[in-house]
Amino acid sequence: MSLDDSGYDGLVLQKISGSKAKVGDIISVKKNKEEYVGVLMPRSQVGSDPFHIIIKLDTGYNIGIKLSQDSEIRKIKAGKKKRTTGTETEVENKGLPTASILSTGGTIASKVDYQTGAVNPALSAQDLYDTVPEIREYANVRAKVIMSVLSENIQPKDWTKIARIVASEIKAGTDGVVIAHGTDTLGFTSAALSFALQNLPVPVVLVGSQRSSDRPSSDAAMNLIGAINLATKANTAEVLLLMHAETGDSYLHAHRGTRARKLHTSRRDAFQSVNGYPLFRVTEQYVEEIHPSILRRNKKRKLILKPKFEEKVALVKTNPGVEASLIDYFVEAGYRGIMIEGTGLGHAPNRLHASIKKAIDAGLVVAMSSQCLFGRVNMNVYRCGVELLDIGVIPCEDMLPETALVKLMWVLANTANKETAKELLVTPLVGEIDMRSEESEYISHLGGE
Amino acid sequence: MSLDDSGYDGLVLQKISGSKAKVGDIISVKKNKEEYVGVLMPRSQVGSDPFHIIIKLDTGYNIGIKLSQDSEIRKIKAGKKKRTTGTETEVENKGLPTASILSTGGTIASKVDYQTGAVNPALSAQDLYDTVPEIREYANVRAKVIMSVLSENIQPKDWTKIARIVASEIKAGTDGVVIAHGTDTLGFTSAALSFALQNLPVPVVLVGSQRSSDRPSSDAAMNLIGAINLATKANTAEVLLLMHAETGDSYLHAHRGTRARKLHTSRRDAFQSVNGYPLFRVTEQYVEEIHPSILRRNKKRKLILKPKFEEKVALVKTNPGVEASLIDYFVEAGYRGIMIEGTGLGHAPNRLHASIKKAIDAGLVVAMSSQCLFGRVNMNVYRCGVELLDIGVIPCEDMLPETALVKLMWVLANTANKETAKELLVTPLVGEIDMRSEESEYISHLGGE
Repeated sequence: MSLDDSGYDGLVLQKISGSKAKVGDIISVKKNKEEYVGVLMPRSQVGSDPFHIIIKLDTGYNIGIKLSQDSEIRKIKAGKKKRTTGTETEVENKGLPTASILSTGGTIASKVDYQTGAVNPALSAQDLYDTVPEIREYANVRAKVIMSVLSENIQPKDWTKIARIVASEIKAGTDGVVIAHGTDTLGFTSAALSFALQNLPVPVVLVGSQRSSDRPSSDAAMNLIGAINLATKANTAEVLLLMHAETGDSYLHAHRGTRARKLHTSRRDAFQSVNGYPLFRVTEQYVEEIHPSILRRNKKRKLILKPKFEEKVALVKTNPGVEASLIDYFVEAGYRGIMIEGTGLGHAPNRLHASIKKAIDAGLVVAMSSQCLFGRVNMNVYRCGVELLDIGVIPCEDMLPETALVKLMWVLANTANKETAKELLVTPLVGEIDMRSEESEYISHLGGE
Repeated sequence: MSLDDSGYDGLVLQKISGSKAKVGDIISVKKNKEEYVGVLMPRSQVGSDPFHIIIKLDTGYNIGIKLSQDSEIRKIKAGKKKRTTGTETEVENKGLPTASILSTGGTIASKVDYQTGAVNPALSAQDLYDTVPEIREYANVRAKVIMSVLSENIQPKDWTKIARIVASEIKAGTDGVVIAHGTDTLGFTSAALSFALQNLPVPVVLVGSQRSSDRPSSDAAMNLIGAINLATKANTAEVLLLMHAETGDSYLHAHRGTRARKLHTSRRDAFQSVNGYPLFRVTEQYVEEIHPSILRRNKKRKLILKPKFEEKVALVKTNPGVEASLIDYFVEAGYRGIMIEGTGLGHAPNRLHASIKKAIDAGLVVAMSSQCLFGRVNMNVYRCGVELLDIGVIPCEDMLPETALVKLMWVLANTANKETAKELLVTPLVGEIDMRSEESEYISHLGGE
């Protein structure tokens, strides 16, 4: 990497240039009689303070040091040259399990784009690996870049691709799979993989980060180490989503893939289990089961791979301005399913009912989830719900709207018979539906368990 | 009411028939040497236990009593005949403030429809008043049925109607307005009234209930009394939404109208403040301010009424399957605005950007909120956000997507100039936007304050 990529300017750039150090080199920073030694990291945070230099300490954490005129920077050792693509495996340590790390992009594998000043997915799996060298202590890692996409751009066909690669890693005998992925649609992908990869022998752990790995406050290192720890040690074979449980670095929560939702735009503990509990508490040191897994690790179990998704499924969030013609539009546009994200217990305005009936008559599967997010759809309580049931709308129990949407895409791609598809949609397969009506899982467990 | 409306059958119906009591009569129920006296209520809960009889006690609360063969029912006194429509005021009690109760429908004013077995809005304001006689102790009440609509069917034109009637009640000198409304879209209506009724002299309190008033576990009575208490006593002149703060009957929370969201399908404490705190803790006995109000009660203040809303505004919740042609559809259908409910910090898939630009070029206002719900949109961090800002998408700060949708409908109906409309959309008017970036309001305060 050249200094042009470092992102520094002004005093910091001047000091770095003077030392002849490059990003990736080990340097010493002396300031007020204190000395800090670590790897020089690129500056990335848009609009961040131009007086700070960022180095990665031996502990794996990044720190920002504010330089003054009399601060000294000295290059100690040149950084290793990095490889940038392909699958890479280090010399095997016989005592350790094997983990596959599949990188799809997102903040956990990103750096700043100096053209737009914004963060872009760019780091290779090897970069990830170099950035968090402690990984080597936890597992023999097979790192692979499978795509480089910010997660808002992930599409159903990407889920198919990811599922197939996970299946091949499992076939190759990995002890656990880690998928580095952007957080924006991490919950959608974790739900999709939960349906696509059934009867798993080992766990599949999706992990992201809310601050990119070249920022001092990054959660990337802890999340990634935790994910490898969880993927190789936990006695589970579910699809899990692992992120910070609190704003601090105390511990992480592993949520069931079909129950996790991003509920905050920026906090490190943005992800929460909805209508369910986190299954594991994880740190770099330990993996603790806090709620029982429904599928245990068993390397002899034979994976069932069903990676296809129907893309022509619409999500309609009802609101006081929603018009019936929107339903008609999806029918005319050749959609095969509509997931309504209705209000309350599962209601859509009366003015939509005729068009919903037309859609069902035209062969679409129309189902109902709730924009409340927490709680269960119950369409037997109010007249509106009863009428929608009569029309043939399928009530999606206590599934998150996002999970229900993904499941509808999945059942429509995997079932030729529409009645079977409808039945499958409301049959619990991988913990996405709980037939017990439990209200206690609301809020009280948020932020804890 | 005839016994056919009572909803009872089997043993309970037999015992009631034997006593010649009708729904609304005061009866005595003797069981195991205990005697209960109260008003016979209709059975309403779909699928409820057929062995219970429901009576309303003197305290205002309903209880269910399980009858056995040797239980005795005796009619004590016939019920009063009820009036059903119009504005009704009781003899004035000079010492009490005046409260206006406007009934729009919803569970708080509902009973069971024995044709479909589902709950329908039906009770008049006078029925509400009769159901919760304690109201008389709190205020001289002007009760008015202004519509009878389950709230999933409320449309922007209904907000206009409600706002105009509130304005006329205020002109008539009321000390506070209570609006009984279904909970499904209660948050949309409370946001709409917050914008439509500015510079209020007295508070406007929206209230609903999660269990209909003829069910033993109803929250209707406590919520209604609390609303009258709040509307007449609190030193505020904001639009507030009042509901249970916990599943028990300990106290209620008054949320700012633009910050409240239904976050659970069935719990009594379904409503939570998002990116804000509840302002008041309320019981039948007291009204306690827990976070400062931004507008204080002042009967001399002159209301600014701006009740119009543009109906042609779409809500688009992005997801991995969303297609650009959906944006094109709204442009072709003559929409004037699109509120995107994007992912994370405010992102929409790249494949939508060209259509979004076309929509803006065609004159639509396109704005961005986040499906995370909690936290703030920040489109300067990632390339996708930066590109959308360049195209002209308006970032809606920390507004709830639902509030942002309603505000876009409102600015488009109240501003001829599009640039003024865009500016107004992101200008804090009634507490709907907080320019401080505060992450602490997430989860930690949920279920408390």
